This record gives sequence, C-alpha cells and structure tokens, in this order.
Amino acid sequence: MAMEVDRNGLEVLARDQCLNLLATATIGRVGLTTGALPTILPVNFRLDDDRILIRSGEGAKMDAALQDAVVAFEVDDFDPIDHSGWSVVVTGVARAITDEDELQALDGIPIARWAPRGNGQVVSISTDMVSGRRLGLRHT
Amino acid sequence: MAMEVDRNGLEVLARDQCLNLLATATIGRVGLTTGALPTILPVNFRLDDDRILIRSGEGAKMDAALQDAVVAFEVDDFDPIDHSGWSVVVTGVARAITDEDELQALDGIPIARWAPRGNGQVVSISTDMVSGRRLGLRHT
Repeated sequence: MAMEVDRNGLEVLARDQCLNLLATATIGRVGLTTGALPTILPVNFRLDDDRILIRSGEGAKMDAALQDAVVAFEVDDFDPIDHSGWSVVVTGVARAITDEDELQALDGIPIARWAPRGNGQVVSISTDMVSGRRLGLRHT
Repeated sequence: MAMEVDRNGLEVLARDQCLNLLATATIGRVGLTTGALPTILPVNFRLDDDRILIRSGEGAKMDAALQDAVVAFEVDDFDPIDHSGWSVVVTGVARAITDEDELQALDGIPIARWAPRGNGQVVSISTDMVSGRRLGLRHT
C-alpha cells in the first residue's frame, strides 16, 4: 500500500498504527476546558483495548471537566537530533470509572503513577477519532 | 523561599521559572477547538520575550481555529527512567502575524520547522496565564 502523505509532507498513520504507537507510551496529554478556558494536562495513561485509561488526581475541578466531556488526548515522541518522530491525537468522551466491579476488573491493568501523592479517579477516554502523523528521516 | 507543593506533591513553578523552561524547548503542543471538537497539535515553537511564536501550516481550518482564539499551549519534558520532569501550560490568545513589518522583525528569530513541506503562518500566543509543575527525584 502506498504511503499517504499530508500537505506538510508528514506520513499519515492508520488507526491500527496509531493504537500500536499508543501502546508503547506511558505519558500523554489531555486537552480539556475548565472554567471556560482550554488547558492541557500531562497524565500517565495506558491503552486498554480501544480505550485510554488515565488517572486524574488534579482535584474536583478537573474531575468535573473530565466527566462525560469530549476531550482531546495526545501522545508524541520526537527525536530532536534527527528530527524524526510521531504524534497521535484521539478525540473521545471522557468518563470517570466509579463502578466497583469495573474498578476491580482494572486491578490487573496497572496505570503508572509518577506523582508522589494523590490517588485520583480512573478515567476512560473512548477512541472515537484517532489520527496520527509520522515524521521520517528521509525528508528533503 | 519555601517550595510550594500542590495536592499531588508536585512542585509549583513560578512564572519566571516557567518562562525559563519554555526557552529551553523547541516542541510544544497547542490545544484548540476546530469543528466544535477539541484537538491537540504538536508544533515547533520559540519563546520571544513573553510570547510564544509557532508555525502553523496545518491548513485553512487550523489557521481559522488559531485566529484570535483562546488556546492552551503545553511543553513538558519527562524522564521515564527516574520519573522526573516538568510541564508548563500557557493559556493565551493566538493571533496570526500578517503585518509585513512585524514579519520582517521576526526574520532574526528563527522558528524551527521539522515538517518537510508547507510554510504556514507564524502565530503568536500571549502568555496571559502560565502555570508549571516539577516532579522531582526525591518523592517517596
């Protein structure tokens, strides 16, 4: 299959390529609106089948902003030396997981937590829209 | 001065610390709304005094979304081995720079461009709101 390239000369990644890349990463960024203003929040995450699982832990305001809201979720990995890398952006619905059975089912799916304190909620983000780009080594 | 720590045990950075960190980086992420949906876009950028300069280049839809819109801009640097790092989030107004004199004044301020094609507009983002967190090595 010929490689699809966008108007900026970046390789367009297919959904399965995007999900495979998401599975290799542990830090992403959630874009959401809180207090009527847009913000971006780095989070630990884990891909679980076709959903993103993150830990919030930013407090009540952020939890409210993540409840049943449409959010953006982004992961990238760029190499500043050779100017190669990739980025994947997901747009989906965030939902706090509060059901006890569902939380227990997640016990086998560890989500890294780097912050020293705070537990936060586990929030899932559906992968309704997934897009990705790759910047290769051989551009001219 | 005692170090301020947030509810998650992360060090809270002052505005000047945040701007100093932004000056060390060349890749950031813009959070904006396009077609009524939130998205996040990785961009090359450069801090110029107290404003962020980015190159768009994503096409007319993105240019429109960046015109006089309030956007979020995020930069981070995390080390997955020792779980240290920092993140800075700016919320400000994006504005395409189209005035010829203003563009000429930017000639001495190179903004890296990794994508092989596309020129795009130069867009400034004001640093009205700046916040940052640092995750240290000595958390328990």
